[in-house]
Amino acid sequence: MQIAVLLFDKLNALDAVGPYEVLRELPGAGVTFVAAEPGPKRTESGALALVADHALHAVPRPDLVVVPGGFGELDARADERVTEWLRGAHETSQWTTSVCTGSLLLGAAGLLEGKRATSHWTALEALREFGAEPVADERVVFDGRIVTAAGVSAGIDMALTLVTEIAGADVAQAIQLDLEYDPQPPHDTGSTAKAPPELVERIRAGSRFARAT
Amino acid sequence: MQIAVLLFDKLNALDAVGPYEVLRELPGAGVTFVAAEPGPKRTESGALALVADHALHAVPRPDLVVVPGGFGELDARADERVTEWLRGAHETSQWTTSVCTGSLLLGAAGLLEGKRATSHWTALEALREFGAEPVADERVVFDGRIVTAAGVSAGIDMALTLVTEIAGADVAQAIQLDLEYDPQPPHDTGSTAKAPPELVERIRAGSRFARAT
Repeated sequence: MQIAVLLFDKLNALDAVGPYEVLRELPGAGVTFVAAEPGPKRTESGALALVADHALHAVPRPDLVVVPGGFGELDARADERVTEWLRGAHETSQWTTSVCTGSLLLGAAGLLEGKRATSHWTALEALREFGAEPVADERVVFDGRIVTAAGVSAGIDMALTLVTEIAGADVAQAIQLDLEYDPQPPHDTGSTAKAPPELVERIRAGSRFARAT
Repeated sequence: MQIAVLLFDKLNALDAVGPYEVLRELPGAGVTFVAAEPGPKRTESGALALVADHALHAVPRPDLVVVPGGFGELDARADERVTEWLRGAHETSQWTTSVCTGSLLLGAAGLLEGKRATSHWTALEALREFGAEPVADERVVFDGRIVTAAGVSAGIDMALTLVTEIAGADVAQAIQLDLEYDPQPPHDTGSTAKAPPELVERIRAGSRFARAT
Protein backbone atom coordinates (compact mmCIF):
# COMPACT_ATOMS: atom_id res chain seq x y z
CA MET A 1 0.00 0.00 0.00
CA GLN A 2 1.43 3.33 -1.10
CA ILE A 3 0.61 6.23 1.23
CA ALA A 4 1.17 9.78 0.01
CA VAL A 5 1.23 12.68 2.46
CA LEU A 6 0.85 16.06 0.79
CA LEU A 7 3.11 18.88 2.00
CA PHE A 8 2.94 22.60 1.22
CA ASP A 9 4.35 25.76 2.75
CA LYS A 10 2.76 26.92 6.02
CA LEU A 11 1.26 23.54 6.75
CA ASN A 12 0.57 22.42 10.30
CA ALA A 13 3.30 19.91 11.14
CA LEU A 14 1.25 17.80 13.55
CA ASP A 15 -1.55 17.44 10.98
CA ALA A 16 0.94 15.55 8.80
CA VAL A 17 3.16 13.87 11.37
CA GLY A 18 0.42 12.45 13.59
CA PRO A 19 -1.05 10.23 10.85
CA TYR A 20 2.43 9.49 9.49
CA GLU A 21 3.67 7.96 12.74
CA VAL A 22 0.62 5.69 12.86
CA LEU A 23 0.33 4.75 9.18
CA ARG A 24 4.01 4.00 8.67
CA GLU A 25 3.56 1.03 11.00
CA LEU A 26 0.84 -0.47 8.81
CA PRO A 27 2.22 -3.80 7.57
CA GLY A 28 3.14 -3.64 3.90
CA ALA A 29 2.73 0.11 3.65
CA GLY A 30 5.25 2.67 2.45
CA VAL A 31 4.86 6.39 3.06
CA THR A 32 5.96 9.10 0.63
CA PHE A 33 5.87 12.84 1.23
CA VAL A 34 4.92 14.76 -1.91
CA ALA A 35 4.59 18.40 -2.92
CA ALA A 36 4.01 20.48 -6.04
CA GLU A 37 7.70 21.36 -5.79
CA PRO A 38 9.81 18.82 -3.86
CA GLY A 39 12.03 20.09 -1.08
CA PRO A 40 11.65 21.59 2.39
CA LYS A 41 8.26 23.03 3.27
CA ARG A 42 8.10 25.48 6.16
CA THR A 43 5.46 24.79 8.77
CA GLU A 44 3.08 27.42 10.13
CA SER A 45 5.47 29.10 12.56
CA GLY A 46 8.38 28.98 10.12
CA ALA A 47 10.62 27.33 12.73
CA LEU A 48 10.49 23.87 11.20
CA ALA A 49 10.61 22.48 7.68
CA LEU A 50 9.39 19.06 6.57
CA VAL A 51 10.97 17.69 3.42
CA ALA A 52 8.89 16.41 0.49
CA ASP A 53 11.05 13.96 -1.44
CA HIS A 54 8.85 13.66 -4.49
CA ALA A 55 6.88 15.82 -6.90
CA LEU A 56 3.16 15.17 -7.17
CA HIS A 57 3.48 13.83 -10.72
CA ALA A 58 5.89 11.16 -9.50
CA VAL A 59 3.20 9.66 -7.27
CA PRO A 60 0.03 9.78 -9.36
CA ARG A 61 -1.80 6.76 -7.95
CA PRO A 62 -1.33 6.42 -4.20
CA ASP A 63 -3.58 3.96 -2.37
CA LEU A 64 -4.04 6.33 0.55
CA VAL A 65 -3.79 10.11 0.43
CA VAL A 66 -3.31 12.26 3.55
CA VAL A 67 -3.92 16.01 3.22
CA PRO A 68 -2.90 18.12 6.22
CA GLY A 69 -4.15 21.63 6.94
CA GLY A 70 -2.62 24.79 8.28
CA PHE A 71 -3.06 28.34 7.07
CA GLY A 72 -0.96 27.60 3.97
CA GLU A 73 -3.90 25.52 2.80
CA LEU A 74 -5.36 28.66 1.23
CA ASP A 75 -2.38 29.06 -1.13
CA ALA A 76 -2.24 25.32 -1.80
CA ARG A 77 -5.91 25.45 -2.73
CA ALA A 78 -5.11 28.02 -5.42
CA ASP A 79 -2.37 25.83 -6.95
CA GLU A 80 -3.91 23.83 -9.80
CA ARG A 81 -1.11 21.30 -9.65
CA VAL A 82 -2.36 20.40 -6.18
CA THR A 83 -6.08 20.26 -6.91
CA GLU A 84 -5.54 18.35 -10.16
CA TRP A 85 -3.32 15.85 -8.41
CA LEU A 86 -5.92 15.35 -5.70
CA ARG A 87 -8.65 14.73 -8.26
CA GLY A 88 -6.48 12.25 -10.15
CA ALA A 89 -5.28 10.47 -7.03
CA HIS A 90 -8.82 10.15 -5.72
CA GLU A 91 -9.94 8.38 -8.89
CA THR A 92 -8.07 5.26 -7.85
CA SER A 93 -7.22 5.70 -4.16
CA GLN A 94 -8.66 3.35 -1.60
CA TRP A 95 -8.85 6.19 0.90
CA THR A 96 -8.59 9.95 0.49
CA THR A 97 -8.18 11.64 3.85
CA SER A 98 -7.60 15.01 5.46
CA VAL A 99 -6.75 16.49 8.85
CA CYS A 100 -7.89 19.91 10.07
CA THR A 101 -8.32 22.44 7.24
CA GLY A 102 -6.94 19.90 4.79
CA SER A 103 -10.61 19.14 4.18
CA LEU A 104 -10.98 22.58 2.56
CA LEU A 105 -8.31 21.51 0.08
CA LEU A 106 -10.28 18.35 -0.68
CA GLY A 107 -13.30 20.59 -1.11
CA ALA A 108 -11.45 22.93 -3.47
CA ALA A 109 -10.54 19.89 -5.58
CA GLY A 110 -14.24 19.12 -5.88
CA LEU A 111 -14.15 15.95 -3.82
CA LEU A 112 -16.60 16.90 -1.06
CA GLU A 113 -19.73 17.73 -3.09
CA GLY A 114 -22.63 16.22 -1.15
CA LYS A 115 -20.32 14.62 1.40
CA ARG A 116 -20.38 14.73 5.17
CA ALA A 117 -17.04 16.11 6.36
CA THR A 118 -15.26 17.79 9.24
CA SER A 119 -12.39 20.26 9.65
CA HIS A 120 -10.83 22.43 12.33
CA TRP A 121 -13.80 23.62 14.39
CA THR A 122 -13.25 27.25 13.36
CA ALA A 123 -13.41 26.25 9.68
CA LEU A 124 -16.45 23.96 9.67
CA GLU A 125 -18.82 26.41 8.02
CA ALA A 126 -16.33 27.00 5.19
CA LEU A 127 -16.99 23.43 4.06
CA ARG A 128 -20.39 24.52 2.77
CA GLU A 129 -18.81 26.57 -0.01
CA PHE A 130 -17.65 23.26 -1.50
CA GLY A 131 -21.04 21.60 -1.21
CA ALA A 132 -20.08 19.57 1.83
CA GLU A 133 -22.21 19.01 4.90
CA PRO A 134 -20.20 20.05 7.99
CA VAL A 135 -20.25 17.54 10.85
CA ALA A 136 -19.50 19.25 14.15
CA ASP A 137 -19.80 16.41 16.61
CA GLU A 138 -17.68 13.63 15.11
CA ARG A 139 -13.91 13.71 15.43
CA VAL A 140 -13.37 11.42 12.45
CA VAL A 141 -15.95 11.43 9.64
CA PHE A 142 -16.22 8.64 7.07
CA ASP A 143 -18.20 9.19 3.86
CA GLY A 144 -17.40 6.40 1.46
CA ARG A 145 -13.69 6.51 0.63
CA ILE A 146 -13.30 10.01 2.00
CA VAL A 147 -12.25 10.39 5.63
CA THR A 148 -11.88 13.79 7.26
CA ALA A 149 -10.55 14.50 10.74
CA ALA A 150 -11.17 17.46 13.02
CA GLY A 151 -8.39 19.86 14.03
CA VAL A 152 -4.68 19.05 14.26
CA SER A 153 -4.42 16.28 16.89
CA ALA A 154 -7.45 14.45 15.44
CA GLY A 155 -5.22 13.02 12.73
CA ILE A 156 -3.84 10.49 15.20
CA ASP A 157 -7.31 9.18 15.98
CA MET A 158 -8.17 9.17 12.28
CA ALA A 159 -5.11 7.14 11.39
CA LEU A 160 -5.75 4.56 14.10
CA THR A 161 -9.35 4.27 12.91
CA LEU A 162 -8.14 3.79 9.33
CA VAL A 163 -5.66 1.13 10.39
CA THR A 164 -8.52 -0.66 12.12
CA GLU A 165 -10.51 -0.61 8.86
CA ILE A 166 -7.56 -1.63 6.70
CA ALA A 167 -5.74 -4.19 8.83
CA GLY A 168 -7.99 -4.94 11.80
CA ALA A 169 -8.26 -3.98 15.42
CA ASP A 170 -5.32 -6.13 16.47
CA VAL A 171 -2.89 -4.17 14.29
CA ALA A 172 -4.30 -0.81 15.39
CA GLN A 173 -4.06 -1.81 19.04
CA ALA A 174 -0.41 -2.80 18.59
CA ILE A 175 0.41 0.54 16.98
CA GLN A 176 -1.43 2.40 19.72
CA LEU A 177 0.65 0.64 22.36
CA ASP A 178 3.87 1.24 20.43
CA LEU A 179 3.07 4.97 20.29
CA GLU A 180 2.04 4.78 23.96
CA TYR A 181 -1.11 6.62 22.97
CA ASP A 182 -2.90 6.71 26.30
CA PRO A 183 -3.83 10.39 26.24
CA GLN A 184 -3.90 12.25 29.54
CA PRO A 185 -4.32 15.93 28.71
CA PRO A 186 -3.96 18.10 31.82
CA HIS A 187 -7.19 19.93 30.96
CA ASP A 188 -10.47 18.99 29.31
CA THR A 189 -10.93 21.84 26.85
CA GLY A 190 -10.15 20.10 23.57
CA SER A 191 -13.50 20.64 21.87
CA THR A 192 -16.12 23.36 21.70
CA ALA A 193 -18.47 21.09 23.62
CA LYS A 194 -16.04 20.90 26.55
CA ALA A 195 -14.27 24.28 26.62
CA PRO A 196 -15.81 27.29 28.39
CA PRO A 197 -17.90 29.35 25.91
CA GLU A 198 -15.80 32.48 26.46
CA LEU A 199 -12.66 30.55 25.52
CA VAL A 200 -14.34 29.21 22.39
CA GLU A 201 -15.28 32.72 21.30
CA ARG A 202 -11.81 34.09 22.04
CA ILE A 203 -10.10 31.41 19.92
CA ARG A 204 -12.67 31.75 17.16
CA ALA A 205 -12.11 35.52 16.98
CA GLY A 206 -8.35 35.11 16.68
CA SER A 207 -8.31 32.01 14.51
CA ARG A 208 -5.42 31.69 12.11
CA PHE A 209 -7.94 30.20 9.69
CA ALA A 210 -9.86 33.46 9.48
CA ARG A 211 -8.66 34.01 5.91
CA ALA A 212 -9.78 30.55 4.89
CA THR A 213 -13.30 30.85 6.17
CA MET B 1 11.62 32.29 26.01
CA GLN B 2 13.93 30.42 23.65
CA ILE B 3 12.91 26.80 23.04
CA ALA B 4 15.40 24.44 21.40
CA VAL B 5 14.26 21.13 19.95
CA LEU B 6 17.12 18.71 19.31
CA LEU B 7 17.07 16.76 16.05
CA PHE B 8 19.21 13.82 14.96
CA ASP B 9 19.02 11.14 12.30
CA LYS B 10 16.47 8.37 12.90
CA LEU B 11 14.51 10.38 15.41
CA ASN B 12 10.82 9.78 15.96
CA ALA B 13 9.03 12.65 14.23
CA LEU B 14 6.02 12.78 16.54
CA ASP B 15 8.30 12.94 19.61
CA ALA B 16 9.54 16.30 18.32
CA VAL B 17 6.49 17.65 16.50
CA GLY B 18 3.93 16.98 19.24
CA PRO B 19 5.62 19.30 21.78
CA TYR B 20 6.55 21.76 19.03
CA GLU B 21 2.94 22.37 17.99
CA VAL B 22 1.99 23.06 21.60
CA LEU B 23 5.02 25.08 22.72
CA ARG B 24 5.16 27.33 19.67
CA GLU B 25 1.86 28.82 20.84
CA LEU B 26 3.33 29.83 24.20
CA PRO B 27 3.18 33.65 24.29
CA GLY B 28 6.61 35.20 23.88
CA ALA B 29 8.28 31.92 22.95
CA GLY B 30 10.34 31.17 19.88
CA VAL B 31 11.23 27.65 18.80
CA THR B 32 14.49 26.67 17.15
CA PHE B 33 15.41 23.24 15.79
CA VAL B 34 19.04 22.37 16.40
CA ALA B 35 21.39 19.51 15.54
CA ALA B 36 25.07 18.66 15.76
CA GLU B 37 25.14 19.26 12.00
CA PRO B 38 22.35 21.52 10.71
CA GLY B 39 20.25 20.30 7.81
CA PRO B 40 17.65 17.63 7.14
CA LYS B 41 17.44 14.76 9.64
CA ARG B 42 15.72 11.59 8.49
CA THR B 43 13.08 10.20 10.80
CA GLU B 44 12.85 6.57 11.85
CA SER B 45 11.25 5.19 8.70
CA GLY B 46 13.41 7.29 6.40
CA ALA B 47 10.34 8.62 4.57
CA LEU B 48 10.42 12.05 6.15
CA ALA B 49 13.12 14.55 7.04
CA LEU B 50 12.84 17.38 9.56
CA VAL B 51 15.20 20.29 9.03
CA ALA B 52 17.42 21.64 11.81
CA ASP B 53 18.22 25.25 10.97
CA HIS B 54 20.95 25.75 13.54
CA ALA B 55 24.03 24.04 14.92
CA LEU B 56 24.07 23.25 18.62
CA HIS B 57 26.83 25.79 19.30
CA ALA B 58 24.63 28.55 17.86
CA VAL B 59 22.03 27.97 20.58
CA PRO B 60 24.06 27.38 23.75
CA ARG B 61 21.62 28.75 26.35
CA PRO B 62 18.01 27.84 25.50
CA ASP B 63 15.41 28.40 28.21
CA LEU B 64 13.64 25.16 27.38
CA VAL B 65 15.20 22.09 25.81
CA VAL B 66 13.15 19.32 24.15
CA VAL B 67 14.92 16.03 23.40
CA PRO B 68 12.96 13.55 21.28
CA GLY B 69 13.67 9.83 21.06
CA GLY B 70 13.65 7.25 18.33
CA PHE B 71 16.13 4.52 17.61
CA GLY B 72 18.67 7.08 16.37
CA GLU B 73 18.99 8.13 19.99
CA LEU B 74 21.65 5.47 20.40
CA ASP B 75 23.94 7.13 17.85
CA ALA B 76 23.12 10.60 19.16
CA ARG B 77 24.07 9.39 22.62
CA ALA B 78 27.54 8.51 21.33
CA ASP B 79 28.07 11.98 19.83
CA GLU B 80 29.95 14.10 22.37
CA ARG B 81 28.79 17.29 20.68
CA VAL B 82 25.26 16.31 21.67
CA THR B 83 25.92 15.26 25.25
CA GLU B 84 28.18 18.26 25.91
CA TRP B 85 25.57 20.61 24.50
CA LEU B 86 22.91 19.05 26.72
CA ARG B 87 25.05 19.44 29.82
CA GLY B 88 25.82 23.06 28.97
CA ALA B 89 22.24 23.92 28.08
CA HIS B 90 20.95 22.34 31.29
CA GLU B 91 23.21 24.55 33.41
CA THR B 92 21.03 27.56 32.64
CA SER B 93 17.78 26.16 31.19
CA GLN B 94 14.53 26.68 33.03
CA TRP B 95 13.32 23.29 31.82
CA THR B 96 15.15 20.36 30.28
CA THR B 97 12.71 17.86 28.82
CA SER B 98 12.51 14.65 26.84
CA VAL B 99 9.96 12.50 25.05
CA CYS B 100 10.16 8.72 24.69
CA THR B 101 13.76 7.44 24.57
CA GLY B 102 15.02 11.01 24.56
CA SER B 103 15.34 10.44 28.30
CA LEU B 104 18.16 7.97 27.62
CA LEU B 105 20.00 10.79 25.88
CA LEU B 106 19.50 13.00 28.95
CA GLY B 107 20.80 10.07 30.97
CA ALA B 108 23.86 9.67 28.76
CA ALA B 109 24.60 13.36 29.31
CA GLY B 110 24.64 12.67 33.05
CA LEU B 111 21.51 14.66 33.82
CA LEU B 112 19.37 11.91 35.37
CA GLU B 113 21.60 10.74 38.24
CA GLY B 114 19.27 10.19 41.20
CA LYS B 115 16.27 11.53 39.27
CA ARG B 116 12.83 10.05 38.76
CA ALA B 117 12.23 9.73 35.02
CA THR B 118 10.20 7.96 32.37
CA SER B 119 10.73 6.83 28.78
CA HIS B 120 9.08 4.63 26.17
CA TRP B 121 7.70 1.74 28.19
CA THR B 122 10.03 -0.76 26.53
CA ALA B 123 13.04 1.36 27.55
CA LEU B 124 12.21 2.11 31.18
CA GLU B 125 14.70 -0.30 32.70
CA ALA B 126 17.51 1.20 30.60
CA LEU B 127 17.19 4.38 32.65
CA ARG B 128 18.84 2.59 35.57
CA GLU B 129 22.17 2.47 33.75
CA PHE B 130 22.26 6.27 34.09
CA GLY B 131 21.38 6.27 37.77
CA ALA B 132 17.77 7.26 37.20
CA GLU B 133 14.76 5.80 38.94
CA PRO B 134 12.28 4.57 36.28
CA VAL B 135 8.68 5.65 36.85
CA ALA B 136 6.28 3.30 35.09
CA ASP B 137 2.92 4.70 36.04
CA GLU B 138 3.20 8.41 35.28
CA ARG B 139 2.90 9.71 31.74
CA VAL B 140 4.75 12.95 32.50
CA VAL B 141 7.38 12.95 35.25
CA PHE B 142 8.67 16.15 36.87
CA ASP B 143 11.85 16.06 38.94
CA GLY B 144 13.00 19.61 39.55
CA ARG B 145 13.75 21.26 36.21
CA ILE B 146 13.83 17.94 34.39
CA VAL B 147 10.63 16.72 32.79
CA THR B 148 10.43 13.39 30.98
CA ALA B 149 7.48 12.03 29.02
CA ALA B 150 6.53 8.45 28.19
CA GLY B 151 6.50 7.13 24.62
CA VAL B 152 5.91 9.18 21.46
CA SER B 153 2.42 10.68 21.86
CA ALA B 154 3.09 11.58 25.52
CA GLY B 155 5.02 14.64 24.37
CA ILE B 156 1.75 16.44 23.66
CA ASP B 157 0.55 15.91 27.24
CA MET B 158 3.98 16.93 28.55
CA ALA B 159 3.98 20.16 26.57
CA LEU B 160 0.48 21.12 27.72
CA THR B 161 1.52 20.41 31.30
CA LEU B 162 4.62 22.56 30.87
CA VAL B 163 2.57 25.41 29.40
CA THR B 164 0.33 25.19 32.44
CA GLU B 165 3.39 25.56 34.71
CA ILE B 166 4.94 28.35 32.66
CA ALA B 167 1.96 30.45 31.61
CA GLY B 168 -1.02 29.14 33.54
CA ALA B 169 -4.03 26.92 32.94
CA ASP B 170 -5.84 29.49 30.85
CA VAL B 171 -3.11 29.56 28.21
CA ALA B 172 -2.81 25.77 28.15
CA GLN B 173 -6.56 25.39 27.78
CA ALA B 174 -6.58 27.80 24.84
CA ILE B 175 -3.80 25.86 23.09
CA GLN B 176 -5.60 22.58 23.74
CA LEU B 177 -8.74 23.93 22.08
CA ASP B 178 -6.77 25.36 19.17
CA LEU B 179 -5.18 21.93 18.58
CA GLU B 180 -8.62 20.38 19.08
CA TYR B 181 -6.96 17.95 21.48
CA ASP B 182 -9.97 15.98 22.62
CA PRO B 183 -8.48 12.53 22.15
CA GLN B 184 -10.80 9.72 21.09
CA PRO B 185 -8.62 6.75 20.27
CA PRO B 186 -10.64 3.92 18.72
CA HIS B 187 -9.08 1.43 21.15
CA ASP B 188 -7.90 1.55 24.75
CA THR B 189 -4.53 -0.14 24.48
CA GLY B 190 -2.17 2.80 24.83
CA SER B 191 -0.37 1.67 27.97
CA THR B 192 0.87 -1.58 29.43
CA ALA B 193 -1.76 -1.27 32.15
CA LYS B 194 -4.55 -1.23 29.57
CA ALA B 195 -3.33 -3.44 26.71
CA PRO B 196 -3.79 -7.22 26.79
CA PRO B 197 -0.68 -8.89 28.32
CA GLU B 198 0.00 -10.92 25.17
CA LEU B 199 0.08 -7.74 23.10
CA VAL B 200 2.47 -6.12 25.59
CA GLU B 201 4.83 -9.07 25.31
CA ARG B 202 4.65 -9.14 21.52
CA ILE B 203 5.54 -5.44 21.21
CA ARG B 204 8.25 -5.73 23.83
CA ALA B 205 9.86 -8.62 21.98
CA GLY B 206 9.92 -6.71 18.70
CA SER B 207 10.74 -3.30 20.07
CA ARG B 208 12.76 -1.00 17.86
CA PHE B 209 14.47 0.14 21.05
CA ALA B 210 15.93 -3.29 21.68
CA ARG B 211 19.43 -2.03 20.88
CA ALA B 212 19.04 0.86 23.30
CA THR B 213 18.02 -1.24 26.25
